[in-house]
Amino acid sequence: MLKNLPEKTVERLSQYRRVLLNYQFLEHGYIYSHNLARILKTNPANVRRDMMLIGVSGDVHKGYEIGKLIESIGDAIDSEQAEKVCFVGIGELGRTVSEYFSQPSNKLQIAATFHFENHQPVAYSDVPSYNISMISEIIRKEDILICVLAVPKDYAREICMILINSGVIGILNFTSVYLQVPKHVYVENYDMITKLEKIAYFMKRHSVNSRK
Amino acid sequence: MLKNLPEKTVERLSQYRRVLLNYQFLEHGYIYSHNLARILKTNPANVRRDMMLIGVSGDVHKGYEIGKLIESIGDAIDSEQAEKVCFVGIGELGRTVSEYFSQPSNKLQIAATFHFENHQPVAYSDVPSYNISMISEIIRKEDILICVLAVPKDYAREICMILINSGVIGILNFTSVYLQVPKHVYVENYDMITKLEKIAYFMKRHSVNSRK
Repeated sequence: MLKNLPEKTVERLSQYRRVLLNYQFLEHGYIYSHNLARILKTNPANVRRDMMLIGVSGDVHKGYEIGKLIESIGDAIDSEQAEKVCFVGIGELGRTVSEYFSQPSNKLQIAATFHFENHQPVAYSDVPSYNISMISEIIRKEDILICVLAVPKDYAREICMILINSGVIGILNFTSVYLQVPKHVYVENYDMITKLEKIAYFMKRHSVNSRK
Repeated sequence: MLKNLPEKTVERLSQYRRVLLNYQFLEHGYIYSHNLARILKTNPANVRRDMMLIGVSGDVHKGYEIGKLIESIGDAIDSEQAEKVCFVGIGELGRTVSEYFSQPSNKLQIAATFHFENHQPVAYSDVPSYNISMISEIIRKEDILICVLAVPKDYAREICMILINSGVIGILNFTSVYLQVPKHVYVENYDMITKLEKIAYFMKRHSVNSRK
């Protein structure tokens, strides 16, 4: 918990683990840095550097031991207790990611989803869904620190302030609104429109080039 | 359409435009590179380089003319005709982004959403919602090239193949599955779990440091 890893390393460690979890039931499973690198489209030097940063060394002939690697990554990046996450307005996408949340090794736990009155809540396994008017009450009660925010633009700033006043200190922002937050809050933005415009720009060039 | 801009430039141009659209109704509106840079957390040199790449120069005393800049960005990154986008399984998040899609200047158009039988379709303004069994038929009929894929893990590969066989060449992948696609298909991955694990890792450090 004390060592400060670089942002990119934390992201990659999280990704390595997700790949490795697919292989965790292999007996005596090992994986080489170049295989991990290939799957995640990075280079083997990055993989080896990340492993060094968390104190893991591989066997020259066999690579990294999968079970041990999963454990070491957990030690390096997970909180000691489970972190609670809530979703505001994200609907079915939550269902897609909730599969991963249900793995026992996972330290993130979806504690609540919130929906607007005129929208039917999407119920997924065991996660309670509340009306958005209850945000403050539930976040305090459940001690939720992380929120995925995906609400219409006009509500984004107001709901963001309610979240922060209720104790949230980490926000994954899916709205296109630039959130001004106090210094102690960590925001990660995701901008779907930009990604779609990027895809629209590159796909045709890409498609044409690949057929040359 | 012929010039090939770097990926990061395309992303930033898309973001500049989204910021600028908020100011487009100002009369004689101008903006400086350092203001754009500040809003998007990049540096002014990047902004000026991006502008040079699309042939835009600002006024030393006033900065860039907002209306003209929006136009030039459109000329540089938009397709000539509107691109159709569909959402598979993304539910309410689509509603959040659909606000932007409805702006007249936008060249992306949500043409369809697809849902699983046991899920109530989320109807948002004028976008037809179909059962997932109709993917192939609708994508061909509507000539949809871009798809946002957010389905449960077990369906991801199969649906991806159906999309590609139906003519999709650009995919924004929200599943945690690594998609193996033919060379002519452009995939952009988004990995929410990784972002959440990153937030969980940094928020407490961040929160503590900011209070020092």
